[in-house]
Amino acid sequence: MKRIAIQHLKKHIGKEVAIAGWVDVRRDHGKLIFLDIRDGTGMVQCVVLPKGKLSNAEKEVVQKLRSEWVVKIGGVVNARPDNMVNSDTLNGDIELEIQSMSILNEAQELPFDKDTELNIDTYLDYMPLTLRSKKGKDIFKVQSEIMRAYRDTLITMDFVEFQAPKLVGNDAEGGANAFKVEYFYDKTAYLATSPQLYKQIMVGVFEKVFTVGNVFRAEKHSTTRHLNEYTSLDAEMGFIESHETVMDVLTKVIRSIVKAVGTACERELSSLKAASALCPTTFPVMKLRDAQTLIFKETGEDSTKEPDLSPAQEKWLCEYSAKEFKSDFIFITHYPASKRPFYTFEDENDAGYTKSFDLLFRGIEVATGGQRVHDYDTLVKKLKERGLNPDNFSFYLQTFQYGMPPHGGWGMGLERLTEKMLGLENIKEATLFPREMNRIDILLSD
Amino acid sequence: MKRIAIQHLKKHIGKEVAIAGWVDVRRDHGKLIFLDIRDGTGMVQCVVLPKGKLSNAEKEVVQKLRSEWVVKIGGVVNARPDNMVNSDTLNGDIELEIQSMSILNEAQELPFDKDTELNIDTYLDYMPLTLRSKKGKDIFKVQSEIMRAYRDTLITMDFVEFQAPKLVGNDAEGGANAFKVEYFYDKTAYLATSPQLYKQIMVGVFEKVFTVGNVFRAEKHSTTRHLNEYTSLDAEMGFIESHETVMDVLTKVIRSIVKAVGTACERELSSLKAASALCPTTFPVMKLRDAQTLIFKETGEDSTKEPDLSPAQEKWLCEYSAKEFKSDFIFITHYPASKRPFYTFEDENDAGYTKSFDLLFRGIEVATGGQRVHDYDTLVKKLKERGLNPDNFSFYLQTFQYGMPPHGGWGMGLERLTEKMLGLENIKEATLFPREMNRIDILLSD
Repeated sequence: MKRIAIQHLKKHIGKEVAIAGWVDVRRDHGKLIFLDIRDGTGMVQCVVLPKGKLSNAEKEVVQKLRSEWVVKIGGVVNARPDNMVNSDTLNGDIELEIQSMSILNEAQELPFDKDTELNIDTYLDYMPLTLRSKKGKDIFKVQSEIMRAYRDTLITMDFVEFQAPKLVGNDAEGGANAFKVEYFYDKTAYLATSPQLYKQIMVGVFEKVFTVGNVFRAEKHSTTRHLNEYTSLDAEMGFIESHETVMDVLTKVIRSIVKAVGTACERELSSLKAASALCPTTFPVMKLRDAQTLIFKETGEDSTKEPDLSPAQEKWLCEYSAKEFKSDFIFITHYPASKRPFYTFEDENDAGYTKSFDLLFRGIEVATGGQRVHDYDTLVKKLKERGLNPDNFSFYLQTFQYGMPPHGGWGMGLERLTEKMLGLENIKEATLFPREMNRIDILLSD
Repeated sequence: MKRIAIQHLKKHIGKEVAIAGWVDVRRDHGKLIFLDIRDGTGMVQCVVLPKGKLSNAEKEVVQKLRSEWVVKIGGVVNARPDNMVNSDTLNGDIELEIQSMSILNEAQELPFDKDTELNIDTYLDYMPLTLRSKKGKDIFKVQSEIMRAYRDTLITMDFVEFQAPKLVGNDAEGGANAFKVEYFYDKTAYLATSPQLYKQIMVGVFEKVFTVGNVFRAEKHSTTRHLNEYTSLDAEMGFIESHETVMDVLTKVIRSIVKAVGTACERELSSLKAASALCPTTFPVMKLRDAQTLIFKETGEDSTKEPDLSPAQEKWLCEYSAKEFKSDFIFITHYPASKRPFYTFEDENDAGYTKSFDLLFRGIEVATGGQRVHDYDTLVKKLKERGLNPDNFSFYLQTFQYGMPPHGGWGMGLERLTEKMLGLENIKEATLFPREMNRIDILLSD
């Protein structure tokens, strides 16, 4: 008999079907045994009736079953009596009466219930198991929908996707914080900290481009905010007026993601108790200096001489934005040129400050972007000012020798966006297989 | 005036419009000057009429223009006279009469015409320029469509996308051919040669998963077939009957890609003179030994004792398949266990041979896959047989301790698929910024 996906069982009420999946939970009520069976599409409650059709051999099999055993089941889909209906969950109104049963694979005894709240290190140590929890599945279902919505929205806007290389000879930031790779012939390569230089090259080709891929930061952080490898949702586009064009497009993309996730992952969001993001048509925009002045005025904390915001200040600004502007998102613009990469465009009307932005969301920077320098001579000058050798960027610089329009773009952290959309406490909960200074899958201690 | 995308100009015949883009070619016919202007969406012929509205200053600007200068143009969209219509190209039936003109950025004199046929090293050295050629744009437009169709097809089949980490502690193949990365505290990490282990972990979570990402091979090859970094289109699924289930799904995915590219990239395929792929409902399947016997019989070349096919034999089999089965694709199965990775499933009815396959397409292997071992004890035994230490795979092995169904999947090379769909000569033509032993963007010679 052809296997039915569990999410489609409801179409087969009164019929005999076959399913296959993992035993999520087995509840033995003496005469009745209940099995929650899970496949990739959902979960269903199955029941072994005392006078059911199972052979004695099959009944013995049922007695042996524990969580995570893999089974194939034949049975009849029954509607539940009204007083047993749970309308909040998939298949809460049906039940599968088991008529045959076989084991596809056994599982060892679990070290803990997979849906237990665990401390983060245990959760990470056992990720092949803990990701099977309801929470783990919900988080990464949402993450996959964020990626899908991100790409689809940009494709609709005529952006072309490309794959940026991760092995690079020189990094956009000049090699600081880049992991070193032993290349051939004793050469050193680096892992890209962003696809920035390639995005700009590709603007020369397709005008509007995007790329989704892993980036690498050799930063010795071990916090709830940082990762040494993460997924960057990047885009770059030509013929912009200023960084504001970029912010407008990013706003549309974010709104589209929030809407798509709200529709496709309604059940997951509800299960994770994720509050809907306040996501108005336009997000508030503040210059860094205006933000600092506001903070000084409202809290008495004087950071007006600082080149950046502290984590606490980012949090404060987001709370302010939610309260004052009904927006969980806020753009902070005009960071000082000295704190931004060499390719950042300086504001011709605000010397020393850049047409760049950070996008803050629920207390954290989730995206950074702006307008880039498109003039070759200016770019060479900026490289030299930073002590970088233009010869090492000769490949990239061709883009600007051979005609580039005003352009800009952003990089957005998939894991941070996921974390904040879902109200999680730690970036690692929103990261499949997080890499940090102490961990690559397992802790790196000797 | 709001800028119009060049692909939409036809909707504005008789109207005044603004466009912006690159000068592709400037043709000076004395009284008449023609400019082909290109933006991200297409190209249009523009004309400066002798008695047109341009100011003298603007006329001087037009005189200075060369290829790749970036301009903003105002003008009127005119239908071309019937005898001037070129119906094969976008905008072959219209022309823009230039009425105003400004320069957004200049370009240096080009080292060569960007559409010239170049030797491969020059092409690669100047990629920021040469990718702007018609051929370059066509190839990578098709590649982006392959990615889109790949993902969309799998999402329709209930596969869930995830991002696999590239920094790994231990490689699926045991570290051979993996690049070494200097990690923290003098630890060594590796660059993943495939997302294999993570795909299998994720089958335990979502049952059907896919991932698109870069993989890295530290192989000292410099051929028209090999790359040291490439994009792998991966998928993995649970509850399969055998490797044949995997082959069936992969066949559907390939057919869907071929169809989508044929529709969305009709113009690009035609311009690249790419022949439609012979892509029947089912692809021919041959065991490796049967293929070798056939080759022996037909060509006299005895390779029946070899564990693999030579490149020439793969080519021969593809030509045979096209002729005999009207299929540019052919599956070769049952490679010897000794030549396949530790996780490969051995055929219980054909000892020593595996339920694995290579998919050949127009002379080259574009995908490899099969059924995987799902039993924990067998997997540990196979690791040990290869001299690998199961302790180093403890994270991965949890997947099998805690219940895994029969499962399998594939990895497919995006660049090889692109190359062969488009009939290109060299994998590097189908690769954005190819990495090889002698090159990362530029040649690595001292």
